[in-house]
Amino acid sequence: MDFSFGCALAYRLQAPTPFVFNIEAAGCGGQDVRDEKLALTPDVPVERWTMPESGNRYLRAVAGPGEFRVGYTGVASLRPRLEDPGAVGEVPPGELPFEVYTHLYPSRYCQSDRLERFARRTFGGAPPGHGRVGAVCNWIREHVDYAAGTSDASTSALDTMVQRAGVCRDFVHLAVALCRALGIPARYVSAYAWRLDPADFHAAMEVWLQGPEGGAWYMHDPTRMSAPEGVVRIGVGRDASEVAFASPFSAFEADPPRVWIAGPEGADAPSTTRAVRYGG
Amino acid sequence: MDFSFGCALAYRLQAPTPFVFNIEAAGCGGQDVRDEKLALTPDVPVERWTMPESGNRYLRAVAGPGEFRVGYTGVASLRPRLEDPGAVGEVPPGELPFEVYTHLYPSRYCQSDRLERFARRTFGGAPPGHGRVGAVCNWIREHVDYAAGTSDASTSALDTMVQRAGVCRDFVHLAVALCRALGIPARYVSAYAWRLDPADFHAAMEVWLQGPEGGAWYMHDPTRMSAPEGVVRIGVGRDASEVAFASPFSAFEADPPRVWIAGPEGADAPSTTRAVRYGG
Amino acid sequence: MDFSFGCALAYRLQAPTPFVFNIEAAGCGGQDVRDEKLALTPDVPVERWTMPESGNRYLRAVAGPGEFRVGYTGVASLRPRLEDPGAVGEVPPGELPFEVYTHLYPSRYCQSDRLERFARRTFGGAPPGHGRVGAVCNWIREHVDYAAGTSDASTSALDTMVQRAGVCRDFVHLAVALCRALGIPARYVSAYAWRLDPADFHAAMEVWLQGPEGGAWYMHDPTRMSAPEGVVRIGVGRDASEVAFASPFSAFEADPPRVWIAGPEGADAPSTTRAVRYGG
Amino acid sequence: MDFSFGCALAYRLQAPTPFVFNIEAAGCGGQDVRDEKLALTPDVPVERWTMPESGNRYLRAVAGPGEFRVGYTGVASLRPRLEDPGAVGEVPPGELPFEVYTHLYPSRYCQSDRLERFARRTFGGAPPGHGRVGAVCNWIREHVDYAAGTSDASTSALDTMVQRAGVCRDFVHLAVALCRALGIPARYVSAYAWRLDPADFHAAMEVWLQGPEGGAWYMHDPTRMSAPEGVVRIGVGRDASEVAFASPFSAFEADPPRVWIAGPEGADAPSTTRAVRYGG
Repeated sequence: MDFSFGCALAYRLQAPTPFVFNIEAAGCGGQDVRDEKLALTPDVPVERWTMPESGNRYLRAVAGPGEFRVGYTGVASLRPRLEDPGAVGEVPPGELPFEVYTHLYPSRYCQSDRLERFARRTFGGAPPGHGRVGAVCNWIREHVDYAAGTSDASTSALDTMVQRAGVCRDFVHLAVALCRALGIPARYVSAYAWRLDPADFHAAMEVWLQGPEGGAWYMHDPTRMSAPEGVVRIGVGRDASEVAFASPFSAFEADPPRVWIAGPEGADAPSTTRAVRYGG
Repeated sequence: MDFSFGCALAYRLQAPTPFVFNIEAAGCGGQDVRDEKLALTPDVPVERWTMPESGNRYLRAVAGPGEFRVGYTGVASLRPRLEDPGAVGEVPPGELPFEVYTHLYPSRYCQSDRLERFARRTFGGAPPGHGRVGAVCNWIREHVDYAAGTSDASTSALDTMVQRAGVCRDFVHLAVALCRALGIPARYVSAYAWRLDPADFHAAMEVWLQGPEGGAWYMHDPTRMSAPEGVVRIGVGRDASEVAFASPFSAFEADPPRVWIAGPEGADAPSTTRAVRYGG
Repeated sequence: MDFSFGCALAYRLQAPTPFVFNIEAAGCGGQDVRDEKLALTPDVPVERWTMPESGNRYLRAVAGPGEFRVGYTGVASLRPRLEDPGAVGEVPPGELPFEVYTHLYPSRYCQSDRLERFARRTFGGAPPGHGRVGAVCNWIREHVDYAAGTSDASTSALDTMVQRAGVCRDFVHLAVALCRALGIPARYVSAYAWRLDPADFHAAMEVWLQGPEGGAWYMHDPTRMSAPEGVVRIGVGRDASEVAFASPFSAFEADPPRVWIAGPEGADAPSTTRAVRYGG
Repeated sequence: MDFSFGCALAYRLQAPTPFVFNIEAAGCGGQDVRDEKLALTPDVPVERWTMPESGNRYLRAVAGPGEFRVGYTGVASLRPRLEDPGAVGEVPPGELPFEVYTHLYPSRYCQSDRLERFARRTFGGAPPGHGRVGAVCNWIREHVDYAAGTSDASTSALDTMVQRAGVCRDFVHLAVALCRALGIPARYVSAYAWRLDPADFHAAMEVWLQGPEGGAWYMHDPTRMSAPEGVVRIGVGRDASEVAFASPFSAFEADPPRVWIAGPEGADAPSTTRAVRYGG
């Protein structure tokens, strides 16, 4: 299915300000991106880099003083595989591919080391694999309020565990931390997310599970606000600290970002009864 | 019912060391203490003070260098009122006696201010009063493991909320924090606790509720390891920081304290189906 | 010296709302209050209580729905004793009056138990007593930025230790925690504070030291923004959680409080070279 | 200079237990490793993987039930460049190579985002580059006690900032967090460290600075207990969570690891007045 998406960012700068952006759709499995347009106003030079281990695409530019606008649009063909959840199990930690261990470790906002007992107690009895991750996401939706203004840039999974409120970033941090605490590699995904209303940069989660064709990253949205088969991935990382959409290295003023995504007209409502993966 | 109880403490001291002890049974409602014996070896002088707002009895002595032993025994007649739980409700926060407000505030180990949303979500639907406090205690017993060695002197209710393990002190800190978060005044009780096995200094909780005869402090043991009608109170306070059984103001070595309590022979097993209060 | 002071509070309420106020000047040593006027609009009935162990005066009223205004004015004669700082020493913890131990304990916002090593390392070499407390306050002023908007109601002394910014409440929480960590009893004081600019409810600290005439509570303003000899005390407590100027027990909207205090015309600028105490 | 080093690990296992080890010296710049011997008893099969972005070498084996021993020895030729500290400056964050940004982000044990104000206040005036990093390390040595038993596996840079005690791991976590807070990329290094006494797995830090020949990772030991020119690197990562020397995925008992390293006889005492880098 094809999705067209994009964002518009606007800054007011006092001085020359270097920016790193992570707004372009990633070049990763199951996601082909085309017809991209990047417009910078003024049209300053751009450096580019793609992170080998993640496929994240980073842009760097120096702008200011004055107004600085960034516009980006693209079209992505997503090829999600929809699989029988009961056929998607767990890989024992001792048999994981070496390159995914990094997503078992605790990180700044996902202190999985302190949640092991809770995770085992609460989800230890769930069916392994897609079922257990679904139980984690369901638990979060049932026990945490989605409420803007209840969290900030320093809020971590432990805070959300105590305070029981947050936004998509916080939901994902807690979900990632709980999956890691259960021995399931989990990573944070920033995305253009279909059917999210209102549209915005969104956060989702991928977990490494064993599907019918082998190990793969499976997509979950712990907020259940978007459709897993319509997630155009921008960046993946240990947590939000690694995939900020914009990192200005100087003081700045910004308008709220404008974000949009459109999917195929007349497409069915997404199903939540299938396991969804993009890669391999 | 009469309970005989006591403790034996032993220290090895390098230098003259001032101690404050809070080991004597408190002079508080529903609890008459007699036949007390305090033996200090060597027999150093003792200063005494009873805290007006709590009835806690404090001893102070300076001992050392050398060995220092403290032995204390007493007999308490407890007159617990066993009431119909359904008749024990809540006092609206705006109608509480002024002197109990202090037990609504957050304290070092009971950060109730950060648990309000969780508490309302989880216990908001429970029957007000004794039922709601019982729901809090039941939740803790179901969701927290009683396990020695999982917590230390800096462990707070928030840590226990995350880590889901602790000992009596931690169970009570979390229970106190949750009750305060619900608008129910709650205080920490240190005690000689009947039927606790093995015997030790124990922690319990009193909450201010509205009984058939008016407002009173009702006793709960969130660990369910002792009998609420056999709790000989030593000290009450905001949390464990206020009722340490011994506070030495210098370096020391100590043996583990020995603690004992004996109730009436042939007494029935305690009931957990009644609301228990001691005071006025 | 005489100070006239007061405050004006304004609320918009959706429903009948109980309030506890702690805005009246306390009846405590060295502070005589007269000519007080309390005006509630509408003129709802008031309950009053004075806390025996602190002298704090609490008011309770139920107001709403609708607008609710509280106005309070008074005149206080302060009799601060200005003493030679070098003559104000420390009381060894083993010799403190029993009733001040409570201000050695850690509290919600003043986790002194975790700051002991830092406190001893940093202030262990300072002259005992007033000198050491002055060193604590100086350290805070030098190492913490006074900056509105950098802290909130859950900010504690540990947060301020890490983040190095806060307002008067945070400065006092850190100062209180450090004094307790040094074995010096310390309490939080809410006050009408002379020369504070702009006027507002202010936070200061009292520490228990040994003066020429015996043990007493000595006043410090860790922000150095007010004059210690012009502090009209409203409430004293373990930390800010115990002396909120207003505690509404329901949803409310409020204007920012208006606060004022005027001292003797032509009075000299306050001295910071003297130890200041009010009590006995 | 050549260094011979190794370790011996011994486990008692109840069941078949997968292990991931990170004990082999890394294949990274300025460090040539030869004559390696790995002996597993019993001699179970081994899987190997080298992480592309770090050069860390990981081993995986399944052993047990029963006793399991791992012995490893090797010889490394280190080619540290000793440079004039004054010629080693900082790279402005907006000009860093893209691949080092990951070491600017906060991580589980290095919450740099909360230490920015402290870092700027304290080290903002130090000479940029090697001088500033040296100031960070000196500050830590002066303000934090090296003391075994004062920290544990959950201790983070914020805890050490408050508690002012720790071991090499804690020193490095705080140093890494402060460098990142200053805009200097910093990573955690596990190592066989020459002159460390007693020998053990050690922690050190590398920071990305601008030397006479370009950007490079410069070695620092915030504990000053080892010689920066004799650090045989095992693993580099965001913090200790990424470079554990052994990760058993099941219950186990272990002896303390034995670790050794020997440098050239008669070598001069290491100098702390030079900037040391290995790479590039």
